[in-house]
Amino acid sequence: GVKRYSTVTNLRLKLPVACIILEVIIIILFGTLVQYDSDVDAKQWHKKINNGTSNYDNEFYYRYPSFQDVHVMIFIGFGFLMTFLQRYGFSSVGFNFLIAAFSLQWATLMQGFFHGMHGGKIHIGIESMINADFCTGAVLISFGAVLGKTSPVQLLVMAVIEVTLFSINEYVVLSVLEAKDAGGSMTIHTFGAYFGLMVTRVLYRPNLDKSQHKNCSVYNSDLFAMIGTIFLWMFWPSFNSAVTAHGDDQHRTAMNTYYSLAACTLATYGLSSVVAHDGKLDMVHIQNAALAGGVAVGTAGEMMLTPFGSMIVGFLAGTISVLGYKFLTPVLESKLKIQDTCGVHNLHGMPGVLGAIVGAITASVASMDVYGDGLVAVTVASNQGVQQAISLAVTLGIALLGGLLTGFILKLPIYATPPDTICFEDSIYWEVPGEEDSHEELTHVRTAEEEEKINA
Amino acid sequence: GVKRYSTVTNLRLKLPVACIILEVIIIILFGTLVQYDSDVDAKQWHKKINNGTSNYDNEFYYRYPSFQDVHVMIFIGFGFLMTFLQRYGFSSVGFNFLIAAFSLQWATLMQGFFHGMHGGKIHIGIESMINADFCTGAVLISFGAVLGKTSPVQLLVMAVIEVTLFSINEYVVLSVLEAKDAGGSMTIHTFGAYFGLMVTRVLYRPNLDKSQHKNCSVYNSDLFAMIGTIFLWMFWPSFNSAVTAHGDDQHRTAMNTYYSLAACTLATYGLSSVVAHDGKLDMVHIQNAALAGGVAVGTAGEMMLTPFGSMIVGFLAGTISVLGYKFLTPVLESKLKIQDTCGVHNLHGMPGVLGAIVGAITASVASMDVYGDGLVAVTVASNQGVQQAISLAVTLGIALLGGLLTGFILKLPIYATPPDTICFEDSIYWEVPGEEDSHEELTHVRTAEEEEKINA
Amino acid sequence: GVKRYSTVTNLRLKLPVACIILEVIIIILFGTLVQYDSDVDAKQWHKKINNGTSNYDNEFYYRYPSFQDVHVMIFIGFGFLMTFLQRYGFSSVGFNFLIAAFSLQWATLMQGFFHGMHGGKIHIGIESMINADFCTGAVLISFGAVLGKTSPVQLLVMAVIEVTLFSINEYVVLSVLEAKDAGGSMTIHTFGAYFGLMVTRVLYRPNLDKSQHKNCSVYNSDLFAMIGTIFLWMFWPSFNSAVTAHGDDQHRTAMNTYYSLAACTLATYGLSSVVAHDGKLDMVHIQNAALAGGVAVGTAGEMMLTPFGSMIVGFLAGTISVLGYKFLTPVLESKLKIQDTCGVHNLHGMPGVLGAIVGAITASVASMDVYGDGLVAVTVASNQGVQQAISLAVTLGIALLGGLLTGFILKLPIYATPPDTICFEDSIYWEVPGEEDSHEELTHVRTAEEEEKINA
Repeated sequence: GVKRYSTVTNLRLKLPVACIILEVIIIILFGTLVQYDSDVDAKQWHKKINNGTSNYDNEFYYRYPSFQDVHVMIFIGFGFLMTFLQRYGFSSVGFNFLIAAFSLQWATLMQGFFHGMHGGKIHIGIESMINADFCTGAVLISFGAVLGKTSPVQLLVMAVIEVTLFSINEYVVLSVLEAKDAGGSMTIHTFGAYFGLMVTRVLYRPNLDKSQHKNCSVYNSDLFAMIGTIFLWMFWPSFNSAVTAHGDDQHRTAMNTYYSLAACTLATYGLSSVVAHDGKLDMVHIQNAALAGGVAVGTAGEMMLTPFGSMIVGFLAGTISVLGYKFLTPVLESKLKIQDTCGVHNLHGMPGVLGAIVGAITASVASMDVYGDGLVAVTVASNQGVQQAISLAVTLGIALLGGLLTGFILKLPIYATPPDTICFEDSIYWEVPGEEDSHEELTHVRTAEEEEKINA
Repeated sequence: GVKRYSTVTNLRLKLPVACIILEVIIIILFGTLVQYDSDVDAKQWHKKINNGTSNYDNEFYYRYPSFQDVHVMIFIGFGFLMTFLQRYGFSSVGFNFLIAAFSLQWATLMQGFFHGMHGGKIHIGIESMINADFCTGAVLISFGAVLGKTSPVQLLVMAVIEVTLFSINEYVVLSVLEAKDAGGSMTIHTFGAYFGLMVTRVLYRPNLDKSQHKNCSVYNSDLFAMIGTIFLWMFWPSFNSAVTAHGDDQHRTAMNTYYSLAACTLATYGLSSVVAHDGKLDMVHIQNAALAGGVAVGTAGEMMLTPFGSMIVGFLAGTISVLGYKFLTPVLESKLKIQDTCGVHNLHGMPGVLGAIVGAITASVASMDVYGDGLVAVTVASNQGVQQAISLAVTLGIALLGGLLTGFILKLPIYATPPDTICFEDSIYWEVPGEEDSHEELTHVRTAEEEEKINA
Repeated sequence: GVKRYSTVTNLRLKLPVACIILEVIIIILFGTLVQYDSDVDAKQWHKKINNGTSNYDNEFYYRYPSFQDVHVMIFIGFGFLMTFLQRYGFSSVGFNFLIAAFSLQWATLMQGFFHGMHGGKIHIGIESMINADFCTGAVLISFGAVLGKTSPVQLLVMAVIEVTLFSINEYVVLSVLEAKDAGGSMTIHTFGAYFGLMVTRVLYRPNLDKSQHKNCSVYNSDLFAMIGTIFLWMFWPSFNSAVTAHGDDQHRTAMNTYYSLAACTLATYGLSSVVAHDGKLDMVHIQNAALAGGVAVGTAGEMMLTPFGSMIVGFLAGTISVLGYKFLTPVLESKLKIQDTCGVHNLHGMPGVLGAIVGAITASVASMDVYGDGLVAVTVASNQGVQQAISLAVTLGIALLGGLLTGFILKLPIYATPPDTICFEDSIYWEVPGEEDSHEELTHVRTAEEEEKINA
């Protein structure tokens, strides 16, 4: 038994090969294709300086603080949110770290390719860094659906495909259909959630109940997860506003997200207490549903949604998310065979679709009367509402088909996948330390005689 | 017994009703009264743009990074600081989350009302968001005084009243008396502390000793609390400078706070080792008293206090705070019947009063000679020092009377309050997971025979 | 035994005396020598304003967000990274807090003295605050080498000397030799590591194996350490770019660091799985080696290294760091008697030297053709590459000699140093709370009869 599993799940060859080959490919492609943009390149920037630009006008100063907030969400937020499982903390924060570090590099290439090359070169700067982190977010959402049931090699392969399809979908939605989706209700949350749900559907494990006793939290793991939740919640205004147009757009997006999340939190606490056992609050709801308000204003956040509108959207998002955790997740598992470890359908799926719909409606009623000259920044297409709705359909289509394809690729028996009996368990992929010594031993200060014995 | 308590403390009806009614009222009031200000509203901002303003001049870029630091202090800082109790981590970070999300919305309305309406409308932007977070801070300070002894419904009711009174006091201090108090030594810390102390006095529990075995920390809970402490400590320069005038004021406030906190930390370690058992350091002091330096320069921080002056103030603040924890807190409890769970009197009360006094003195000696044309930014009133002193008295008065009133309201037997025997305990309001399985079970990899048995 | 140790390691007199004397000296020196610079001083800034400067041009807005990221790395990053030990969390985060709070004040004075006085005064502002935090970083690196084996008094004395020597070395490298080292590959990482390694060499404990059972992690301590790791990793782009020239330099440094770290992370996971037992991942590698990419672009990061070059450097850094942990650390301990608790040689020492070499090479090939008018910002000296190489040699020399001297001073038997048998243990310096009550007791809700008994 021990030997068999240590053979099956042994990463010694597979993980190094995957990491090193992928990184070498990325380095070669960066060497061939990637250049600093004109705010980063010394020569080009100093040409701008000579033409009267000030160093203080560098895009860095107007995007970098938002970038860092997004960065915290990706690495601390998603990473710790998933540490809620009692014995999967190393993997949650550790695999999150690995696939995020990979995805942001791969996304730079894929997004650069689709966003438009400049003389055969991809130009990068602070905005491409934010976009790469955004794309990474979608991969981490999908990771949430398959959490505990996949090997790091599988996750890297998933990331390769998902980043590629994400970039194609993003290109279609933002460039071809000219939809607005600055905070990614569609391109990030809806895409990442339905892609991951389809992957986990294909990877369905009928005997997963054998690991079920580990598929739950303990007291401290829930507190670690709250670190993730709170950082995601606090910085979501930065996430939604990180790449919107400068000025009122960015300001408004941050503010709308702030109020949507606050209203969502009240709805989450209220609803959790209604549906949970004995009127008690359920940590799963607090950790997840309270964030749905950020997802749901990911499209309309930059529009003149008003704080009033944002709060209504946030309140609805929190409500459907809690109800989803309580009533829908069990059905998805029993009827549709979708084993969604983190419940990404409730946090990213449904609120993402809600956000897309709210965005389409808000865009379709946008008028010169309300926006003045700011109208062009939020409505690019002549028939913006319709374009938004089509974008949602396209996103769902690419996500589901892409997830289907990816699921079958991930089913190949070559990834050191954990067996059904040892899912949700760090020790198959990590050197796990022993537990703490008993209290007595630790605080016992040795007597002189004991000392002498030891010293002897 | 079990049944009786699950009835008494059952939140099923009370919490949902409180959350949903409050949120619906807020949404209606926002719909009726609240508008984006001219840096947020698309039409108005683009009028400014047409008049030569640059998008880079939007207030967002000069306040938002500070706002996010303050936001981290409110949700991570306060939330995790209070996780020090061994079995109250869910409630500490969770109720902190709930009442902060509520208070920031309610504060937007109350502060907007008192700060001056524009044609019957409240105008909001990044500065109002910071101010709403500030007001929330006061509520969380009061929460610290009653931690472990209150239900979430009680806390929401407290927040409704406290935010309202905070806004009135803030209006009197800043607008009527024209006092300076950018970092809130008076309006936030003194107000929040004495309000909370009066509430906990009225809610005095003679039999609280029955829960006393849970009113202490364990090893990991103290480490979680240090996350809160360190984030508060690091971002306090942003807190004190978040709403000061742009330019030298903001720069100076951040710097004074930085040095005050550093000196305070040295004093805290030195004093803790003097007063604690056997010369050992006490985590309670490190977690709390090291922050008193931030509180104590909340008024004078924007003035020409100099790093020298800031350090003296910080050193004093750390000293009185440690001494307060050691000698005053036990007396407050035994003689005055004030059960102050987090010792907010030592962290916010006394250092807040110290800060108010330092502010009054520093303002009264401010001169054109030292400030040049910068004098107007820090001294509004002709007799600034006196106005500052009156403001402290007013703040203490409103806080104590308000806390008295609130205490009596919170005494009503309708809030699902915990009984004396089960205070400081998450499990009455939260679904609490079991403990970790024993080490052996967790790292035990099943043998082939065991596998087969299970699979059979 | 108990008595003997509580006497030997008792801090009651020593720590207060050290803290208070040091703080009083600092306050006096600040009062005598330190002034706000012209962006902080009210009078001087308003003279600038009268001459047409805008409040928005204050240096505060272009450095403060970077400062706060660096601040988080110093206090959360370093502090929590070192909490990996099972029973040394209080000391790791607590002593980190103490010596950082001291060092940043002392560094302000020492760096101010060497960076050039203005009419006998040290001028301080946001840039000096960043530099003080940087110097503190070096002290914390050295702390990592002696972690678990030193008293807080020893650490304060070490900080006094190290900050002084750091400032001298920084002056020689940056001002005399005119080397570039914005992210401190040499001045911070190489210096801090080799200084600390020499200190721990002199403090060699032949009987340290008696505490060896505590010199390891437990499950939750490794998760706490990951908080430190991830914050360091995320904010390293801010660290390296915090004091570079405004404009393209700052933008480029952040971007190069971002890609170097991402590539380093892939290398770390790959290599860890190659060298660790059974192909499993080792938390020590993930927590530390994944950060080496930030160290290794600390010199060249602001140059036109390109993302391609940055990734190669990061990949190399991660590789040598993991190999160092696996193969070099045991040899250093057994052959050279260097007991390096955190393995700072692998995270800061070798990657720092690598960074210095990469910096020398990159500087030596810098040309007008690539940099345009931006060349002057990155190459000050006419023979920049050679100056860089000499700087590395100087840094190593001062660090090793300084560490040697400091080690002997720290050997004096006056610092309440822990005995060999109780290293890596919080309880000698801290009031340590008991462990959690058993599960049953905690979640047991008393029956009515039990209640009555208790109430009786």
